[in-house]
Amino acid sequence: MFKAEIKVTLKPGVLDPQAKAIADSLSVQGFSEVDAVRVGKYIEVILEADTAEAAASRVAEMGRRLLANPVTENFSFTLTPLEGEA
Amino acid sequence: MFKAEIKVTLKPGVLDPQAKAIADSLSVQGFSEVDAVRVGKYIEVILEADTAEAAASRVAEMGRRLLANPVTENFSFTLTPLEGEA
Repeated sequence: MFKAEIKVTLKPGVLDPQAKAIADSLSVQGFSEVDAVRVGKYIEVILEADTAEAAASRVAEMGRRLLANPVTENFSFTLTPLEGEA
Repeated sequence: MFKAEIKVTLKPGVLDPQAKAIADSLSVQGFSEVDAVRVGKYIEVILEADTAEAAASRVAEMGRRLLANPVTENFSFTLTPLEGEA
């Protein structure tokens, strides 16, 4: 079993109104040190796989086929083995 | 300058319909090895701070005051120094 921690973020240059709203709210609340904000999705997938390589290959395919829009979004992930598997 | 990579996730037991939709779609598309899915927000904040400790303290305060709902959500983050600062 592996845990994939997936980040789906907007590509640079794609308008990010949610991030703008957060940046404005932080500024109003006195967090004037904030320089930039970007917002994306965090998706955690627990999956079965024999090896980390097999898990990585499947998670990358999930990203291509369902989780991310390759035109506007970047997709990256880290894998962690669960239950002491390598 | 520091980059804070923030994960806001639903607490265990809180209903997560978006994750259910993704899990069902993955299953329909043949990803039968998927065991569980959780969905959250990923927020990247670039901020100025003199030290990593100061940055961490400010980011934690942003979480408490704006970015997460402490009743239903967990908030965690990692900090990375930018431009070679420690």
